[in-house]
Amino acid sequence: MPLADTRYETRRRTLAAQLASQRIDEMLVTNLIHIRYLSGFSGSNAALTVATDLRVRIATDGRYTTQIAEEVPDIAATIARPSAQALIQDISGPKRVGFEADYVSVAQLEAWQRACAEDVELVPVSGLIENIRLIKDPIELTGLRNIAELATTALADLLAAGELAVGRTEREVAADLEYRMRLAGSERTSFDTIVASGPNTAKPHHTATDRVLRRGDLVTIDYGAYADGFNSDATRTFIMCEPTDFSREIYEVVLQAQLAGIAAATAGTALVDVDRACRDIISQAGYGEYFVHSTGHGVGMEVHEGPSASTVGKGELAPGMTLTIEPGIYIPGRGGVRIEDTLIITRSQPEIITGVSKELTVV
Amino acid sequence: MPLADTRYETRRRTLAAQLASQRIDEMLVTNLIHIRYLSGFSGSNAALTVATDLRVRIATDGRYTTQIAEEVPDIAATIARPSAQALIQDISGPKRVGFEADYVSVAQLEAWQRACAEDVELVPVSGLIENIRLIKDPIELTGLRNIAELATTALADLLAAGELAVGRTEREVAADLEYRMRLAGSERTSFDTIVASGPNTAKPHHTATDRVLRRGDLVTIDYGAYADGFNSDATRTFIMCEPTDFSREIYEVVLQAQLAGIAAATAGTALVDVDRACRDIISQAGYGEYFVHSTGHGVGMEVHEGPSASTVGKGELAPGMTLTIEPGIYIPGRGGVRIEDTLIITRSQPEIITGVSKELTVV
Repeated sequence: MPLADTRYETRRRTLAAQLASQRIDEMLVTNLIHIRYLSGFSGSNAALTVATDLRVRIATDGRYTTQIAEEVPDIAATIARPSAQALIQDISGPKRVGFEADYVSVAQLEAWQRACAEDVELVPVSGLIENIRLIKDPIELTGLRNIAELATTALADLLAAGELAVGRTEREVAADLEYRMRLAGSERTSFDTIVASGPNTAKPHHTATDRVLRRGDLVTIDYGAYADGFNSDATRTFIMCEPTDFSREIYEVVLQAQLAGIAAATAGTALVDVDRACRDIISQAGYGEYFVHSTGHGVGMEVHEGPSASTVGKGELAPGMTLTIEPGIYIPGRGGVRIEDTLIITRSQPEIITGVSKELTVV
Repeated sequence: MPLADTRYETRRRTLAAQLASQRIDEMLVTNLIHIRYLSGFSGSNAALTVATDLRVRIATDGRYTTQIAEEVPDIAATIARPSAQALIQDISGPKRVGFEADYVSVAQLEAWQRACAEDVELVPVSGLIENIRLIKDPIELTGLRNIAELATTALADLLAAGELAVGRTEREVAADLEYRMRLAGSERTSFDTIVASGPNTAKPHHTATDRVLRRGDLVTIDYGAYADGFNSDATRTFIMCEPTDFSREIYEVVLQAQLAGIAAATAGTALVDVDRACRDIISQAGYGEYFVHSTGHGVGMEVHEGPSASTVGKGELAPGMTLTIEPGIYIPGRGGVRIEDTLIITRSQPEIITGVSKELTVV
C-alpha cells in the first residue's frame, strides 16, 4: 500500500499558519492553480476555503462530482453553483475571510458581499499562496524534472530525425516538435511554440510562420510541454548549414552570458545579481542594447511565475526555487540568438533540468 | 489597393453609442479579446479607451512597439507599463469612466483608483462588449467558416488515412488530429482535444489517455482549431468495427435530437426552445437523465461565448449569431454519444459550418 499523499495537507498547514499572522480566520481560494496546489483538484470550476484551524471545504459543480471524489478523497465536496458563493454563504461570523484580490473580479466580489453574512468581513489578500509556491516540494521537483526531460528528449529526437532542415517551414518544425511531445505524454504546449528563423530570430515573441528555413539562417526554438499540472520551458538556437562570423559571434556571447547566469544562480544570491551576471557579459561585448528582456523567471504550475531575475528583481534565491536563465541578443533586420535552461536552485551549483546540448550546433 | 479596413472603427462606433446611453464618458477596455475586437491588436498586454466622441487611445509595453504599429496603424500607441494606468492617469475630469467589472481584479481597481484624478469616477460596466460581439460581422463569419473548414478537413483526412483504428490509443489519435490541424495553419487547439473511447465516452469531459481502441468501442472526438483569433468547435462519435444494438440506438437518438436542434435554430427562436427541441427527443426516448449538459453555446473569438442554449438560456436567436448544437447521452459504465455542429444563425435554416458527415460511421 502506498504511503498516504500528505502534500496537500502540508501545504494547507503552511497557508493556515500564515493566515493567523495576518489575522485572517479563513481564506477563500478561487485561483484554479492554487486550488490544485492545495487540494489536487484539477477541474475548471471550484472554490476552496482553508481556516486557521485547518478546517477545509471545497466546492465544484455537477460536471465534476466523480472527478473531485477521486482527486480529493480527503475532503467531502459541496456540489453547488456558483461554487464560491456556496462556501461563502455557509460561513457564520464574526469572521475575517481573506480572498485573492489579484484574481477576484470587481463584479465577483460585489456578488459575494451581497451573499455573505453581515458580520463576515471580506479582506483582500495578495501574493500569499504565490509566496508559498516559490519553494517547490520534492513532488513538484519530480514533476518538473519529468516534464523537462520529456521536452528535452522530443527536441533531441527531432534533431536526430533531421526534421530541422533547410527547405522546411517554421510551422512544420513546430508541428513536428509538438507532435513528438504530445505522443510522449504532453497534454498541451506550455505556451505557443516559437520557431523563429532568419530575420524572425530578431523578434523575441515570434511564433512560427510559413517561412522556409534557408542555408545560413539562425533558428531559435523556444518551447515547452505540459502534463500533470507542470510546465517546461527551454530555448535553443541552431545554425542552418553554414555559420557566419555574425552568427558565431552572437551565439558565443549569449552562451557565455548564459553560463555566467547559471554559475551565479545559487541560494542566497540576489535576483538582480543573477540578472547582472548575465547582462554584464552581453554589455561588455557591446550588445547590451539588444538584450531587451529580463534574464529569467520561475517555472512550475505556471510557465511564468516567481521569482523574477531582472534589473528590478526583488529578493534572493533559495533552495527549491526554479529559475530560467535565458539571455538573448536581438538585432533588428539581422537576427538573434537566445539560449535558455530551467534550473532548480540548490545551496551549491544549480541543477539544470533542460539538457539539450548548448554547443554551437550546425544542422 | 485594398479597401480600408473599417471593421474596428465600426465596432468602436457601436460601443460609443451604447456608452452614451449609460452616461459613460469613456470606456477603459482591458480584456485582451475585447481589445483585439475593437482595435486588431493581438499582443498579451494592452489597454484601450473609447470615448463617446470616438476618441480612442491604446497602450502596450516595449515588447510590442513594432507589432502594435503594424496591427493598429490608425491609432498612435502609448508605450508604457502598467499600460491601463498610463491611460487612466491621462484622463482629466470631471468624467465617468467605465471599466470591465467582470475582468478587472479588486487589486487592479484599487491601483487605478489611487492613480486617477479626483473628479474621475470609475464606473463598473458588465456585458456591454460581449453583447456587441453576439452578432458576428461578415469578416468574423469568414474567419469562423475558414477555421471550421480547416478543422473539418483535418478530421476527414484523418479518417481517410485510417488513423482512427483499433489498436491505436486515444492519445495517438488526438496527436494525429492536432498535427494535421497545425500543419494546415492552426496556431493551437481551441481547447484540449477530447478523444474518448469505450467507457470513457460516458464522461463528457474526458480528454485523451493511453487507452487502446478496441472492436465495438464508441469513440467521441470533440476538438477545435484556432487561428487569427477565431475558434472552431465540433464533435463526432464513431463506432469501431462493429456496432452493438446499444451503440446504434443511442447514436440514432442523439442524431435525431441534434437535427431537431438545428431545425429549431432560426432567428427569433427563444434559446430555451432550441434547447427543448433537442432535449425533448432524448427525453422521449427515455434517456433524458443522461443528457447532463446544455444544448449549445456561441463560438467566436472565444470557443465558449454567448448565446447559451440551455434550460435557463435567456433571449432569442438573431441573424449573425453562432451556436453549437451538441446533445449527448452518457451512461456511466456503458458509454456515450455526442454529436456537435457549429451553426451560423440566419432568418431561415442555419448555415452548418462544421461539415463532417453525421451518418453512423463504422471505422
